[in-house]
Amino acid sequence: MVKIDPDRLMADLKRLRGFGATGPGVVRLALSPVDLAAREWLVGRMTEAGLDARIDGVGTVFGRSRNSGPALVIGSHTDTQPTGGWLDGAMGVMYGLEIARALAEHDATRHLAVDVASWIDEEGTFSGLLGSRSFVGEAVDDSIRGATNRQGERLADVLEAAGLAGRPRARFEAGRQVAYLEPHIEQGGRLEAIGKAIGVVTTIVGLRESRLCFTGQRNHAGTTPMAIRRDAGAALVAFIARMNDAFGQLADADTVWTVGRVELDPGSMSVVPGAADMYLQFRDANPARLQAMERALAELVRDFNAHDAVSVELQTLDEPIEPVSMDATLAEHIARAAEALAPGQWLRMPSGAAHDAQVIARCMPACMMFVPSIGGVSHDFIEDTAEAHIVLGCQVAATAAASMLLQLSARHS
Amino acid sequence: MVKIDPDRLMADLKRLRGFGATGPGVVRLALSPVDLAAREWLVGRMTEAGLDARIDGVGTVFGRSRNSGPALVIGSHTDTQPTGGWLDGAMGVMYGLEIARALAEHDATRHLAVDVASWIDEEGTFSGLLGSRSFVGEAVDDSIRGATNRQGERLADVLEAAGLAGRPRARFEAGRQVAYLEPHIEQGGRLEAIGKAIGVVTTIVGLRESRLCFTGQRNHAGTTPMAIRRDAGAALVAFIARMNDAFGQLADADTVWTVGRVELDPGSMSVVPGAADMYLQFRDANPARLQAMERALAELVRDFNAHDAVSVELQTLDEPIEPVSMDATLAEHIARAAEALAPGQWLRMPSGAAHDAQVIARCMPACMMFVPSIGGVSHDFIEDTAEAHIVLGCQVAATAAASMLLQLSARHS
Repeated sequence: MVKIDPDRLMADLKRLRGFGATGPGVVRLALSPVDLAAREWLVGRMTEAGLDARIDGVGTVFGRSRNSGPALVIGSHTDTQPTGGWLDGAMGVMYGLEIARALAEHDATRHLAVDVASWIDEEGTFSGLLGSRSFVGEAVDDSIRGATNRQGERLADVLEAAGLAGRPRARFEAGRQVAYLEPHIEQGGRLEAIGKAIGVVTTIVGLRESRLCFTGQRNHAGTTPMAIRRDAGAALVAFIARMNDAFGQLADADTVWTVGRVELDPGSMSVVPGAADMYLQFRDANPARLQAMERALAELVRDFNAHDAVSVELQTLDEPIEPVSMDATLAEHIARAAEALAPGQWLRMPSGAAHDAQVIARCMPACMMFVPSIGGVSHDFIEDTAEAHIVLGCQVAATAAASMLLQLSARHS
Repeated sequence: MVKIDPDRLMADLKRLRGFGATGPGVVRLALSPVDLAAREWLVGRMTEAGLDARIDGVGTVFGRSRNSGPALVIGSHTDTQPTGGWLDGAMGVMYGLEIARALAEHDATRHLAVDVASWIDEEGTFSGLLGSRSFVGEAVDDSIRGATNRQGERLADVLEAAGLAGRPRARFEAGRQVAYLEPHIEQGGRLEAIGKAIGVVTTIVGLRESRLCFTGQRNHAGTTPMAIRRDAGAALVAFIARMNDAFGQLADADTVWTVGRVELDPGSMSVVPGAADMYLQFRDANPARLQAMERALAELVRDFNAHDAVSVELQTLDEPIEPVSMDATLAEHIARAAEALAPGQWLRMPSGAAHDAQVIARCMPACMMFVPSIGGVSHDFIEDTAEAHIVLGCQVAATAAASMLLQLSARHS
């Protein structure tokens, strides 16, 4: 059986952390100088591992196997959030590198083809999931022309300045690339809460985002009796209570909804709010449930406008994101590897977060696996995973990758 | 009976509006150049009316009657909010000026003493209610040394630059000044809603302000199941619902409470809020009810901390402001004048807003009267009152003032 080298894996993970290390966390925004330096380093490590590696025309690092036969792509991202953790994305890419090396060191697996990818800008510094979207053939040139970061720098200018603008872009090779594996930290607290070490992802949840704008009447908070107020803030609070009831009736244990932002206007202690906005996001693995929640929300809005002195307008933000099922056959390889290496310590679960895998799944069968996040924390400097879990996860992924490729090779030969 | 001159009153109100006029509203922040110019103009008008007028050491314009005998002080303020209306405060001062003139034009009232005041900085550009606080003998020098406006200018420097710092300050004259009348716009919608023209103020309500800080756990909004969340924003919403129930049981029709400002941290759609603050103000005319509401709030906080996964801390902001009763005998003069001039078109009501009268009441009997605000709007450029109501209000105030002074003179002689 293929064996990874835990010391080599951890050393490379820590070297990558050095690019943008900030306290225990990392600040390595897509295409920033420190991110570009990390990409050059990664190209070097891939090349040493025998891959044909380069940075492509959008910034993705792609290491192509020189072996023939069906290829498994293992990838994730090495860019971070503005205050990012050291493992979010980075761990999956380093797993891919270590697995390519480990397979090449064993006779039974030396012939297998593993491509390794670090997709650019998963975190959306300029344009979220850009690398994977470009890889699957989405027309991203409009995104590239229009996208800017928070400092107002244009993506097109940044690619030009980095000398990447003219380069070829990594693209899906139909027939050769036959499966995608994305290992990742869980970024939630479920594995830890029930004492499991590996999550086999069934579905990446879908997502809806909306803004609800309440319009009442701004008034003096001392002189306006409660009975004649049209308090937009109080209406917002009442609406959330009704929404919690309605969503609670539709939800299962994995359904989530979040009011992450609220704004009252004018935001003064002495003024009855005349306007109030809330930002709502909800996620679920079941497309029918997402639609039922949308209908329930629209009905609440209609009912509110029919009966309340404050009006509310529902604005949809962005395109809806539909749930994406992971490939069951690939997932079974992960499950078998997990059961062999950590019997009873794994479970099947949805991914509540978005990942490049949901994009790659458009062109080939895709799967994901999780390792536990300490305290469920991610997108934060203190994000971490026990080293034993990092190492176990890579051994599970390597075992599953070999198993997938041996089966796929048998089918293709 | 004393008769005011409606044309003279309206002309002076419009002249005063000219200082800082901005569209239909006025920007005349305390001690700004345009406010100082308005004060100089006001001193001139008071002098023409026969008063001994000057700007005092804190900026208050005080016009002292040259008549002997007990004096009625009529006052309000001519400074405005950052986006102020043309009548808030200004109307009461112009009433005082017109009443001093009108009384001097009639044989039966020519001997009566009316002092007229425009108290500095009622609106708190530097230090709220400064002029009336100085007048009643509060030690305001600490306020003057410490106070700055939003631009960071120090009050002490501004008084120095205006040449006011060394001047004597107007002070309450015990024995001579025996009553205070403050006419004002309602700044609320009650008179308009029930079709009344005059409000006779019974009490200026007391006020409590607090911040409630909820502390939960910041988490990824996709990967954190509802069951293990500690969502500070959701806790805030649940708390408000319980508070509304508790306050609703204690309230009468005049009790008001307002959540004017809410902040969720970090305020992102994809992050479960880890902290949330709400700013609460409540007002009532009954000190016992204010205390009962404080107790209910403290009990809700205790109960919440005992049972909820999110903790809440109650922080009291500023000193509590206790309700101030208006003098019933003075109010009766206003009520009789209102009934004589507008039979059935007046009512007794609390003032939901703060006024200089609540400060002046510390040293002498004080009363207030209101005229309707169109749409209940104040602290806004579109603040207005029907001219008929402005004129009627001044005639009622003049009649009441004469009646008060004739009675007080009889008592003192």
